[in-house]
Order: sequence, then C-alpha cells, then structure tokens
Amino acid sequence: MAATASSDLAELLAIPSISSEPQHAPDMRRAAEWIARRLDFAGGRVVETGGHPAVLAERLGAPGAPTILVYGHYDVQPAGDLTAWTTPPFEPTVRDGRIYARGATDDKCPVYVALETARRLVERDGTLPLNVRFLIEGEEEIGSPSLGPFLAANRDALACDVVVSADGAMWRPSEPSIAVAAKGLLGLELVVDGPASDLHSGRHGGAVLNPNHALAAIVASLHDTDGRVAVPGFYDDVAPAGDLSHVPFDEGAYRAEVGAPGLHGEPGFSTLERLWARPTLEVNELRGGGAFTVIPSRASAHITCRLVPEQDPQRVFDAIAAHVATVTPGAVRAGVELQPGSVPAYSIREDDPAVQAGVAALRGVYPATEPLLVRIGGTLPAATLFERELGIKTLLFSFSIADEQLHAPNEFFRLERIEEGIAAWTMLWELLAR
Amino acid sequence: MAATASSDLAELLAIPSISSEPQHAPDMRRAAEWIARRLDFAGGRVVETGGHPAVLAERLGAPGAPTILVYGHYDVQPAGDLTAWTTPPFEPTVRDGRIYARGATDDKCPVYVALETARRLVERDGTLPLNVRFLIEGEEEIGSPSLGPFLAANRDALACDVVVSADGAMWRPSEPSIAVAAKGLLGLELVVDGPASDLHSGRHGGAVLNPNHALAAIVASLHDTDGRVAVPGFYDDVAPAGDLSHVPFDEGAYRAEVGAPGLHGEPGFSTLERLWARPTLEVNELRGGGAFTVIPSRASAHITCRLVPEQDPQRVFDAIAAHVATVTPGAVRAGVELQPGSVPAYSIREDDPAVQAGVAALRGVYPATEPLLVRIGGTLPAATLFERELGIKTLLFSFSIADEQLHAPNEFFRLERIEEGIAAWTMLWELLAR
Repeated sequence: MAATASSDLAELLAIPSISSEPQHAPDMRRAAEWIARRLDFAGGRVVETGGHPAVLAERLGAPGAPTILVYGHYDVQPAGDLTAWTTPPFEPTVRDGRIYARGATDDKCPVYVALETARRLVERDGTLPLNVRFLIEGEEEIGSPSLGPFLAANRDALACDVVVSADGAMWRPSEPSIAVAAKGLLGLELVVDGPASDLHSGRHGGAVLNPNHALAAIVASLHDTDGRVAVPGFYDDVAPAGDLSHVPFDEGAYRAEVGAPGLHGEPGFSTLERLWARPTLEVNELRGGGAFTVIPSRASAHITCRLVPEQDPQRVFDAIAAHVATVTPGAVRAGVELQPGSVPAYSIREDDPAVQAGVAALRGVYPATEPLLVRIGGTLPAATLFERELGIKTLLFSFSIADEQLHAPNEFFRLERIEEGIAAWTMLWELLAR
Repeated sequence: MAATASSDLAELLAIPSISSEPQHAPDMRRAAEWIARRLDFAGGRVVETGGHPAVLAERLGAPGAPTILVYGHYDVQPAGDLTAWTTPPFEPTVRDGRIYARGATDDKCPVYVALETARRLVERDGTLPLNVRFLIEGEEEIGSPSLGPFLAANRDALACDVVVSADGAMWRPSEPSIAVAAKGLLGLELVVDGPASDLHSGRHGGAVLNPNHALAAIVASLHDTDGRVAVPGFYDDVAPAGDLSHVPFDEGAYRAEVGAPGLHGEPGFSTLERLWARPTLEVNELRGGGAFTVIPSRASAHITCRLVPEQDPQRVFDAIAAHVATVTPGAVRAGVELQPGSVPAYSIREDDPAVQAGVAALRGVYPATEPLLVRIGGTLPAATLFERELGIKTLLFSFSIADEQLHAPNEFFRLERIEEGIAAWTMLWELLAR
C-alpha cells in the first residue's frame, strides 16, 4: 500500500539531516537513501562525493527534447535554540495550513515538489515531456564544498541544457517571483595584533595601543558615516544597478519588518537598490578581550562582502587589504586573510528562454498576480558552480518563500504551495519541452 | 611539635581559596580558619561579613603607643589554564629560590610575612611594640564587595591610626619601593542596538546600520588617533602629574617587556606619566555577532577607566555618556551603563609619617638601594574604603613584586623576601611605635 504524499513528506522532514554536525552522518545517508528511493522510476541512487553523499537520477526517454538538471539539497541547518520551537524541529507538525519542521522550506518541501512532479507525470503518461536529470546534494548548508569537484568529475553524466533549481526562495508572499540575480560572496578575517600577550589594563593602560581601539578605528574606516563603503576601489567594477522602479517596495514596511530605528545605506540609492544591486561590506563579528581588566594581545573581525556582477572577489579583497594597510597605526600590526568559499555574483538574463518559461508557468498557476523578476542579496554558490563547471545557467524555481523562517526556529512551508508548485513545475517542463 | 615556617606556608598555599568560584566556599572557610589559628596569640577568629568570612584579631597591650590595622587577603584568583602551569597551582613547589603556587604573591606570602612578624615578636618579647589589629579578608579578588559595609559596621572594633597593607606589590625587582598612589576605577558597558533581531547579512546587508559598524565608530571616537582620550571633559579635574623625572625608566626596555610594535599614548607625557599620573580609557572587550552571515541585533563593549586624583567617577561617567549620545548615529540606539565597583583614586602624602617610616625600614633591610616612592596604574579599592569608612590612610607595605605572575600561570614569590619582609615589618612597627 502506497503511503500518502503528505505522510511521505513527514518521513523526510523527520530525518535530522544536519550536514554541519558529524554525529548526523547516518541521518545524512538515510535522507539520501529516502530521496533515491523516491526516484526509483529514474534510476535514483546514492553516490559518493568525498563529503556527504549526493543523489543522482535520470529519465532520458525524450529524444529531441532538451535535457534539464533538477538541483536541490536534502541537508538542513542545525535546529538552534530548541526552546524557541513551538513543536520539535524534527517532529513535522501541521498548523494553520503550514508544515513546521527544520528544513521544511529549505529545502525539503521544494525538493519534494520537483520529485513529485516527475513521479506523477510518469504515473500519468508513462513518460516525461523532456529529459530530466536529478542532482540532490547534501552539503548546501555548509557551502557545497564537494559540488565543484563533483561537477568537474561528472560533466558527461550531468550534461544538460539548463539547471532548474528547487532551492532559492521567492522574495515575499504577496506575488510569485523568479530571482534572476544573486550576489557573490567574499569572506575575510581582519586581525589586529598588539602586545605579545594580554596585559593588565590598570598596570599598562595608556602606554600601548589597545588592539580593541585599533580594530575599532580600522572597522570604522571601512564605511563613510553616511553608509558608503570607504575602501578605495571597492566600487570600481560594479555593473549599473538597472531600473528597479517597477518593483513595488514599501520602505516603511521594511523598516518595521527589520525593527531598526532607521534605515541606513549607500547614499544615492533606494533601499531596494542597496539590497539587490549594490555591493555591501558587513562586519559579522567583532571579538577582542573579555576579561574585566585586560588589554588583549589580539582583536579581530569577521567580514563578508556581497558582490554584484562584474566584481571579482580577489580584486575586492586586494582593495580591502590595501586599505587596511594604509589605515593601520604603527603601534599595532594588522592583516586580512581571505576565507575559503568566495564566489562572484550570479545572474541570468531576463529574456533567457528558461526565465520566460518560468514566468509563463507562474502566470498559469497564479493568474491574478503578475510574477516579478527579482534579485537575491544572498549568495547561491551552486548556480555559480554550474556556470563555471558545466557552462550552464540556472533557473531558480523554488516554491519556498523567504519569510518562512529559514535557518531560524519554527521554520515552515505553506502546504498549498506543494500542489501549486507541482502544477507550475509540470507547466514549466511542458514549456521547456517545446 | 611545631611545624617549620615553610611547611606552614605550604599548608596555606595548598588551599584553593578561590573567592570567585562558589564550589570553593568550604576552602574559603578552611583558609580563614588557618589564618585565625595563626593569630591565636591575638585572639584570631573567623567573622561573618555577609560574603566570604574575614579574620579579625587584635593585640592591644601597648598603652600610649599607636594602633595599626594590618590588612591583607587570603582569597586567590582562579588558576586559569592548568596546562600553562609547570607544577599544579595548589601544590606549592620550590624552584630556584621561588615558591610557585596560585596566591603565592597575591597575597598569601605577604600576609604570612605580617603574621609571622607578630608571632615572632610575641615569642621573643612577650609583647608587641604597638597595638596591632588584623583584618584579613576573603573577597579582594572579587572587588571587596562586603568590605565597605563591614568597615562601617565595625568602626569601633577597627579603630586605628593607620592601616598597613600586606597587599599592593612593589613595582619592580631592581629596587625596593612604596606606592603612594593608585588609580581609581570606573567600569561601564557600552551597548549598541540596531534591528529587532539578528538579520541575514546577505538578505539585509547594506540597508540597515550594522551595530558592529556603529559600535566601532563610537569606540573609535573615544580616542584621538594620537592616543588622547577624545571625550569632552574627560581631563577636566585631573590633578597635575607631578615631577617623575627622578624615577629611572627605560622606555625601550618597557616596549620589549610588553612586546608591542611600538608604544602609544597621550601626547605630551612620558610613558611613566601615562602609566602613573594620567587617566586612561581602555576597551577591555568588544563583542558583536558571531555567525558567519549575521548582522547582529546588538553589539557591545566593556570599558574601564583608571582615574587619577581629583577625578570623580560619576562625573567622568557622565562625560562619556554625553559623548556617546552625541556621536551615536540615528539608525541605531546606544547607551552606557555604569558598572558596580567604581572608586576614586587613592593617594597618601610622601611626607606622611607612615610613608617615611616605611622608607626608613626598607633602607634598613636594603641598605644598598635607595627605596623609590612609586604609583600604581591599577586600583586598590581597600585603601579607598579605609579612607572613606574609617578616615584612615593606608601604607602599602607588601613584599610581593609586580613581576611575580600575579593573576597568571606560574605565580610565584621570592623566598628570600619572607625573612627580608619580616625584618622590615619589625623595623616598621618599632619606628611607628615611637
């Protein structure tokens, strides 16, 4: 007796496939095997990548039709603070038309939509309208470290005309949307060294430059007071923002959503342009000292930049390193170190046939609201890797919405979007097949 | 059979009387009882303070002679990183003329010197040359929170002409010294609040003011680039430094000792003036964010100021609060909160008879090297409390030296200074008795 769709889904959501926690390695494999079983009709199988396993499958019975590669991931973020969850993160629970579980929106339900689309089409027609490969990985939440080498080593097995990603959430619940750009990422560590060891701030205060003070001065020099990045050369290669005036955006509602006393950013640009089209430099962590009476030997900051098209991560890093060298006082030493995982921005043309097919599919399922073409302030390394390793563009076609608490407690997915998603994916495949 | 002095001392050093760690409450009481037993000849007894117990004793058989109050503490700092200790912190070990143990120099051996001075004089003469009270507390390492109320409640039982403190190390090993001033303390917490909760730095970067950036800008504004504190009014009440040119001080050797790339401080003052006579503002901790991709809701700094004579902690706090309010950008909120334990600076006149008696006693024990009158960049809350509650000045007469790793791994005390200290304390008491 076949299980119902929703109890199937609950089974997947109940597996704590947390890629960043080694003790969950057996759960990772269980989740991969679950996905592979669901893809039985396409030869679904668990394959080794060097890191967590991936799932591959293909159903290539449509000669003359294009081939697509469906991408998604089965791994999830850690649950975080368990006390903040209304129901336990790995006991999927339905409330008010939403299913709550860690990984519900990122990315298990969206992956389920893609799998179920294929399964139902095969069940209905005995075939698919185009050739479909599946690659569902298990390392997205840890930066997809094995994906690049895996793509490079399996170019033939993954040959396709376009990637369709079940990952990459829609922007907001008020209208369907397709993201046509995501920012790149540059991570770096800024370290300031002063005295050889921690000093007592009573005994030595006032006679040496406290690394906390030097770090603050260097960090403060990274932006003008009005919010522009003050690193010479930072904006050199930035592509023009493009016109975003057609996108409805309420700055007051956004300010209320983030709960900040005021909005603040690069002068001359709207909040939406700052979020979507302008590169950013954010200090994610400041750390120095700790004891009540210490002048620390070292203080440091973790910094990430989000890059836009035409910016090269290495060139931006070099500009920051040169700036830090210029502003560092002589009484301390400071340096920056490039972190692994830098990627340039990703974008796909709005008139790409895959994007246009996606828009048409969304119009079919949501006839009352015109789909928006939007951008993502975050980074989608997989799309960059598909482009770099396979030379193929990626259509982001997820039925997740960015407000569904991804990476946060009480992550959820709107249940009606499972059937909406399957309808849209079916229409998309039919359009791409033409 | 009486134990030898050194095995006595080892017994005291072996007790882990760590006042900041609640599980050591029984050890605190054991150490207090040990001290009280050593003061049997003076009615030594453990007394309650509301916090950790103190030890009181008195030998008042010298009518017409002055009365002194001997102050010290039996509590110690936590051991810290055990792997950094050559021998375990509570297994006192003699190597190369030094005894190694947590609390050896701060403050058990110096206290032992005072106790042993009294014991030997009573054994030799059957009496003491002056009236002596003892107050050995157990909360010095946690800021002496019970000492002020205890002094206020026991003014009569503690009546004296001068306090002689076994706490407060000599400056350096090259010459004997007496500290005639210690800086005051002002602790405060600077907190910057931005968005209502942590935000994803990709999704929201560039549109809100990151509290880490605002904190860095505020902290950077607290000093000029040349090292002067830039808070308006900070230096308003500062008493002149006085002439320190008679004190030999090698700036190059100091720079090598602290291991910093360069010295750095308030322009127009020597390093020694900066250390001893000028107020300081040091950021002991910076903290904000932590996750790889976060814009934190809050960032904060812990700040301590060391104050000099005539500065009022509350007025300095008010000046900092006003400055922070002035420089805080509108897109975040910032505030400062006064921490408990603020005290003004302490000083005793160089021509105070107790200081002059101390200098004479040091000359007697160390005839080859003229004693120095020095100052302390750190804070001695007890001396301030004795002045405030009893109206009595404190002579700092410790045989600890500031290089003996106090508060650090491998804390030690130079063994020859036990007999030197007893000789000097004996001479001091005879001089004060005249």
